[in-house]
Amino acid sequence: MTEETRDTEKFDNFGEWFDKVLLVAQIADDRYPVKGFTVYMGWGYSIVKRIYQMLEGELEDADHQPMQFPVVIPEDAFQKEEDHIEGFAAEVFWITHAGENELDRRLLLRPTSETAIYPMFKLWVRSHADLPLRMHQTCNVYRYETKATRPLFRGREFLWNEAHTAHVDYEDAECQVRIGVDVYKKVYDALGLSYIIVKRPDFDKFAGAVYTLAFDTWNPDGRVNQIGTVHNLGENFAEVFDLTYEDEEGNQALASTTCYGMGMGRVLAAILAHHGDDNGLVLPPVVAPKQVVIVPIPFKDRAQGVAAYAKDIEATLKVAGIRVQLDDDNRLRPGEKYYKWEMFGVPVRIELGPREVDGRTVTLVRRDTKEKCKAHLDSLREEVVGLLDDIQKNIKERSKKRLEDALSDANSLDELRSLIEQRKIVRVNWCGDQECAFLIKDEVAGDVRGTLWGEEEEPSGLCINCGDEAKYVVYVARSF
Amino acid sequence: MTEETRDTEKFDNFGEWFDKVLLVAQIADDRYPVKGFTVYMGWGYSIVKRIYQMLEGELEDADHQPMQFPVVIPEDAFQKEEDHIEGFAAEVFWITHAGENELDRRLLLRPTSETAIYPMFKLWVRSHADLPLRMHQTCNVYRYETKATRPLFRGREFLWNEAHTAHVDYEDAECQVRIGVDVYKKVYDALGLSYIIVKRPDFDKFAGAVYTLAFDTWNPDGRVNQIGTVHNLGENFAEVFDLTYEDEEGNQALASTTCYGMGMGRVLAAILAHHGDDNGLVLPPVVAPKQVVIVPIPFKDRAQGVAAYAKDIEATLKVAGIRVQLDDDNRLRPGEKYYKWEMFGVPVRIELGPREVDGRTVTLVRRDTKEKCKAHLDSLREEVVGLLDDIQKNIKERSKKRLEDALSDANSLDELRSLIEQRKIVRVNWCGDQECAFLIKDEVAGDVRGTLWGEEEEPSGLCINCGDEAKYVVYVARSF
Repeated sequence: MTEETRDTEKFDNFGEWFDKVLLVAQIADDRYPVKGFTVYMGWGYSIVKRIYQMLEGELEDADHQPMQFPVVIPEDAFQKEEDHIEGFAAEVFWITHAGENELDRRLLLRPTSETAIYPMFKLWVRSHADLPLRMHQTCNVYRYETKATRPLFRGREFLWNEAHTAHVDYEDAECQVRIGVDVYKKVYDALGLSYIIVKRPDFDKFAGAVYTLAFDTWNPDGRVNQIGTVHNLGENFAEVFDLTYEDEEGNQALASTTCYGMGMGRVLAAILAHHGDDNGLVLPPVVAPKQVVIVPIPFKDRAQGVAAYAKDIEATLKVAGIRVQLDDDNRLRPGEKYYKWEMFGVPVRIELGPREVDGRTVTLVRRDTKEKCKAHLDSLREEVVGLLDDIQKNIKERSKKRLEDALSDANSLDELRSLIEQRKIVRVNWCGDQECAFLIKDEVAGDVRGTLWGEEEEPSGLCINCGDEAKYVVYVARSF
Repeated sequence: MTEETRDTEKFDNFGEWFDKVLLVAQIADDRYPVKGFTVYMGWGYSIVKRIYQMLEGELEDADHQPMQFPVVIPEDAFQKEEDHIEGFAAEVFWITHAGENELDRRLLLRPTSETAIYPMFKLWVRSHADLPLRMHQTCNVYRYETKATRPLFRGREFLWNEAHTAHVDYEDAECQVRIGVDVYKKVYDALGLSYIIVKRPDFDKFAGAVYTLAFDTWNPDGRVNQIGTVHNLGENFAEVFDLTYEDEEGNQALASTTCYGMGMGRVLAAILAHHGDDNGLVLPPVVAPKQVVIVPIPFKDRAQGVAAYAKDIEATLKVAGIRVQLDDDNRLRPGEKYYKWEMFGVPVRIELGPREVDGRTVTLVRRDTKEKCKAHLDSLREEVVGLLDDIQKNIKERSKKRLEDALSDANSLDELRSLIEQRKIVRVNWCGDQECAFLIKDEVAGDVRGTLWGEEEEPSGLCINCGDEAKYVVYVARSF
């Protein structure tokens, strides 16, 4: 049985499937009365908090200091970097008034924070001893998206974490790029997400960057989902903001800088989309707000004994540090509870009735494969921990396999078009000309996402569009 | 030796002391180029993160779901509650444009989130089974303060957490108010902060509330610092936003609601102000980013052995879950390091040189009392844990004693004026008339903060201003 036949709804009607799980599993509510602004609900935001915690932990282990910069940026600071303002100006929200007063100077909501951060870095950096300087902040950013919005994937307010670093030279910034990539890999890997890391073509890099790396993941509808980006900014921003330091010889030198950002909505969307099935979410145990749900099955005069046993099990698992929910709500039947907690994606369900009470056992049901097994109370903790670990590995493996299945090669535009329609991520030869990339997009409705980063891929033929010599192997896919 | 004589700078020049520790201990930088907007730096924000974590943990243990609502509120939703708009309209930031376009409808940055949240509550609440509904969110709020701003105490962007709850009736909302108060008490108590809980006079309650409770703490300059508020909103907001539910008899009924908010800047300011001294910060171990700093004292040919021993100690403490920093930076002398880490408020310093290596001991220095003691390596973990616990208790006790010293009684305006000048928080009899409260403020430059909550205090004389019969004992103090 392939993934496709198993999860018809998720793969064939992704949009409907996604909208349903968002609301029913209390992930997000898109009915907020301002377009493009989404409410993150209890279950969804509990997951987001755990992702933030993992990411912040990794960043701080890698010597990034947590900070918090203002959400507003004065117009003059924002306009300093020309490419930057060109890239973002059409998308910024402007604050023009406060109370009854018109402000002397317009403020904008940060679309990203470089122009807020560099004036402060300038105050903090005096000498080479102050470098490297590495900070990160968890905050929301604001972009007036004119494309169609979709909760989590593309909104006008998005939840994210951004890191900004300054270094003595380009080489040290290059090292930092690799550190940033490693931090992000650790987080995605822990979440069981598969991805490719590509270097974006110049025409699609971050406004003001020397180059941009991006993590692209697959999505059931065939559109790749960018879940993180890492940028080497070289001396571009340092020059504009006059970020200099005194080097070891006493000379003033320009710093080199980097930044990287992870959008939490996108990451959450990838978790739902990769691991979920037609019964709802399948959450990675590491971020599941509840890892185990206990459903007691009361039976006539044994109800009290079952309830007491359920409480014992709950206590045993809690002590072991497992996030457990005892569902003893009497208004729902056991079957209704199974349905509910499957929708919420709780990794393990424990069922117990009189038979389990008598045998000092429980029935364990994994959410990812629906397989059942028995465990004795004496070894319950080990069994559950082992099962959570298995689930974590299995969903990661499934996601990886799906990515491998999605990757294909094309040697002609017709072939490419057909593969894109089959929701593939397609490798093609490309001459490197921007014009060709745009023509490819026009022809096949797929974007040139970039070249694989970290491994050199040699083109084996001519540019798929113009037939000239190919310089790169690039990945083409539909995207959000 | 009293606190006053020991910490002259903190008590006599609080503003200067505070500005210095903010910058030197890397708490916050007020040089951001938009007035009233502050940058939280690495050390400061690390503390804030730990406070948030404690608070969120307590709220979630008390069944509040974490959520995240948009920062923007549409003008029409905001204007629904009349008192509310009257209370906040002069202070809101308005977004009028996006990119090149003027928006059809103005958006404001949330000054508080009731008007963002209630339209969604209305969608989520259908029947009594959906109640109580309890959520909390950690977010920033925006108020265009026209009074003088001061970092952490009064800014135009402030870091906070707010909870919003809905209930079947007023009585259940009353219970929730007590739960909210208890959650906040747990957090403040853990931080070693002393406070009084007062019910604010009607003229000073939250716009739209039935009543407002507030936590006021002392500050070295005599101005009380409001670190949290809890409001019973009764049916006021439910009525305006038509928040109804079907009760058990099948009838539509209005919900009752509450909300409570804690400003993290204010709480952080209280931690610095209560516990700090003229050498800098004294952090409660529970939120100190580093609880122990190890300073090796290299000595001629023994430097290598000392360094190795320091690493052993570091590893021992890390394994025990203690947040430890080994300061092996060779550019600073031990004395300079002592000075630096005292400024940062690290609770325990470990000094070790050749003598300690030989004896398998360390020298422990407490930040709060500066006392030194020795510990053997075998019992190091227990000694450090015990010391951190002692420090936590001692600074809490000191803060409490200072509050008790600050509380006074006055029977005449002259006496009140004199006590206010002595930076006291003064109990007086008050008739309950708003006019009298304003006259008191004019006369003595102190605000009527409210009546003690939780314990009835009987007035023992006549109103301190008008001489009519007193209805309340109220607390008067200067405030931020």
